[in-house]
Amino acid sequence: MEPVNVGLLGLGTVGGGTVNVLARNADEIARRAGRRIRITHAVTRDLSQNRLCDTTGIRLSSDPYALVDNPEIDVVVELIGGESLAKELVMRAIDHHKHVVTANKALIAIHGNEIFRAAQEQGVMVAFEAAVGGGISIIKSIREGLAGNRIEWVAGIINGTSNYILTAMRDHGRDFADVLKEAQQLGYAEADPSFDVEGIDAAHKLTILAAIAFGIPLQFDKVYTEGIARISSLDIRYADELGYRIKHLGIAKRREDGVELRVHPALIPERRLVANVDGVMNAIVVKGDAVGPTLYYGAGAGAEPTASAVVADLVDVVRALTIDPNNRVPHLAFQPDALTDLPILPAEAFRTAYFLTLDAVDRPGVLAEVTRVLGVLEISIEAILQKEPSAGAETVRVIILTQRTEERLINQALSEIEKSPSIVAPVGRIRVEYLD
Amino acid sequence: MEPVNVGLLGLGTVGGGTVNVLARNADEIARRAGRRIRITHAVTRDLSQNRLCDTTGIRLSSDPYALVDNPEIDVVVELIGGESLAKELVMRAIDHHKHVVTANKALIAIHGNEIFRAAQEQGVMVAFEAAVGGGISIIKSIREGLAGNRIEWVAGIINGTSNYILTAMRDHGRDFADVLKEAQQLGYAEADPSFDVEGIDAAHKLTILAAIAFGIPLQFDKVYTEGIARISSLDIRYADELGYRIKHLGIAKRREDGVELRVHPALIPERRLVANVDGVMNAIVVKGDAVGPTLYYGAGAGAEPTASAVVADLVDVVRALTIDPNNRVPHLAFQPDALTDLPILPAEAFRTAYFLTLDAVDRPGVLAEVTRVLGVLEISIEAILQKEPSAGAETVRVIILTQRTEERLINQALSEIEKSPSIVAPVGRIRVEYLD
Repeated sequence: MEPVNVGLLGLGTVGGGTVNVLARNADEIARRAGRRIRITHAVTRDLSQNRLCDTTGIRLSSDPYALVDNPEIDVVVELIGGESLAKELVMRAIDHHKHVVTANKALIAIHGNEIFRAAQEQGVMVAFEAAVGGGISIIKSIREGLAGNRIEWVAGIINGTSNYILTAMRDHGRDFADVLKEAQQLGYAEADPSFDVEGIDAAHKLTILAAIAFGIPLQFDKVYTEGIARISSLDIRYADELGYRIKHLGIAKRREDGVELRVHPALIPERRLVANVDGVMNAIVVKGDAVGPTLYYGAGAGAEPTASAVVADLVDVVRALTIDPNNRVPHLAFQPDALTDLPILPAEAFRTAYFLTLDAVDRPGVLAEVTRVLGVLEISIEAILQKEPSAGAETVRVIILTQRTEERLINQALSEIEKSPSIVAPVGRIRVEYLD
Repeated sequence: MEPVNVGLLGLGTVGGGTVNVLARNADEIARRAGRRIRITHAVTRDLSQNRLCDTTGIRLSSDPYALVDNPEIDVVVELIGGESLAKELVMRAIDHHKHVVTANKALIAIHGNEIFRAAQEQGVMVAFEAAVGGGISIIKSIREGLAGNRIEWVAGIINGTSNYILTAMRDHGRDFADVLKEAQQLGYAEADPSFDVEGIDAAHKLTILAAIAFGIPLQFDKVYTEGIARISSLDIRYADELGYRIKHLGIAKRREDGVELRVHPALIPERRLVANVDGVMNAIVVKGDAVGPTLYYGAGAGAEPTASAVVADLVDVVRALTIDPNNRVPHLAFQPDALTDLPILPAEAFRTAYFLTLDAVDRPGVLAEVTRVLGVLEISIEAILQKEPSAGAETVRVIILTQRTEERLINQALSEIEKSPSIVAPVGRIRVEYLD
């Protein structure tokens, strides 16, 4: 089947990430989508600039109008940001019957109602998963995954810069201005940080979340918006003493008499999962009447996490264009003729760390014996915990945390250790997962 | 447009929940799906039994074959569980060109390859979101939301019973057998708990997750499976001392030489979000090469959470049957002509709790004055924290945490409090969100 031709408006951070992800995972993506996805054209302001991605095979130009007018292009990906030129280009692409994928939250929050009407009239798709929560597929989860629920509220950490600053203020007891400056040096905050720290970016995203959660029109101008500049490190410390964390939240809540739409810093009880989402990470909590609370966590910004959502939208478009509508999404994610039969490894081949529990006679030399066996098999020790024998008991309990190794080696070590007369019971073994 | 007719196989916990959710949210669901979804027939073993749901308007019978053969039914929802009768009925429904929605993890893990082939041949849909993670839309998130990624690993707490038991063992320092008995009395564990605590249920789910993550066939028989019966409360305590929690995980990991598929208890560093998922809740972490780690959290079982996923699948089926394929999922989740214009409330109407910071002259009576103002406006106080004045300072800092109230009342209180000569600076105010 013919590849789908994609034109990219913008080759900055997210544009570069999109080129890289589509190139690196080309086979995997084609196995899922049923067709290859090929970036044929890209528009960039500065053609001479060095790029973070390899643009071999992509026709570069500085004329965005020519790209949206080009009849060879099936899908336009809009990544230039802002809302006036972006709107003009997206509307023109739709007029030319092209599908559109965009990561532009301001565009959707402010002009979405008009853009969607045009798309409906022209029978094309407009997808915008990357506009909220970066790589977290929160639009899909609410629009489709929670379609059976009356959604009661949505609350999210939806601006990574603000969350990074609040986390650093708490971790180091430092003040806002101080941390902001550092975040700018590290590239986590823009030179003009107002969009992020004043909550405008979060308000764009909240506008979109509220619309899809409650079935109301997009209405950015009605969001109450407050930033984090007035939070002090003392506020954070006192909140801590009371058992709370301060996070910058976007909240949309349905009440009998209407909808609350608000972006502001908030204390959250520290035992809530979302209170422990730190650094640049995002998380959105959605409460549905049937499902109860659900949470979606991941990287809310950055080149490849955002590209992950852009490419997911492209796969959605391609699946809709290509596949038997009754089997639009393959049952097992990949096309039935594109499954691969990777070997499933035996337990002996597992690689992980181990938490070992030994009951040993309380006499010198036992620990040396055990660590010698581990050493010979090149199993490194992360930590040892020796428990005092209880009164009258003649054995001690020793806990050993190993570093990552192979299960085969652990099996060998334990069978040897258990032969020792000093070890009075089978060694307990629980695997350790770092999930990193 | 004509409603879609659904036949329900099974009226137990999840069946009852599905009837209730479809009835309660009928309008909201029709606004999303573009058509009404109506349960016309249901099959139950015992027709005389009292039910948790209102079955008015549903034709009940005890003959499942008649239901899957009935030409009036468009979609069959299979909720009887088990794998032999369920398989026979699902295959027969597919042969009759009916779409199928199922919550049956054993059925999909063991017979999925065969069922999907049949569905593809007959051009019908088979949807199974409820089979993994209950109300968490993890199948959709991996198959569609992460479609741009090479998925490196999936690790999840995917059995609520085991997680409930491990959480209770940790919270109360009690042993497995003891907690299991209590879980059985509370209905969190079956009379025969082996499916849950020996990891078989988790292995079914992991089989499905691994297939959709890596594009490999379903192969339940190759999952390494270990339950939680051998974990002691001492293991949990020592793991705690080392900074770890013990969770029962399903792990699928892609390596150069193959795939690890394993279900077993594991220590996880306590700072990981997933280590703090307690009680009957489920959470799945997915690591993609572009997006990095993402986490999906929610209720993994229970009548309405599972029904939430069943209904989401029904909406998916109805959208595919009904709508312009280019706008299968409405941009704003609800059909464009079904948006409602709920009023967006002004900030004065917000209802939440408040964290107030007062700088007051250090003399008796100030606190009484402040609490009197709050009392008159019926603003209740949750906690007060008074900080010692620093050496030489003449003011003290007082932190007041209020209970939930209306923003209008807080504004009124603060304007009155700020008039007092004892209060030397504007009162600081941060909202508090309990997210419950």
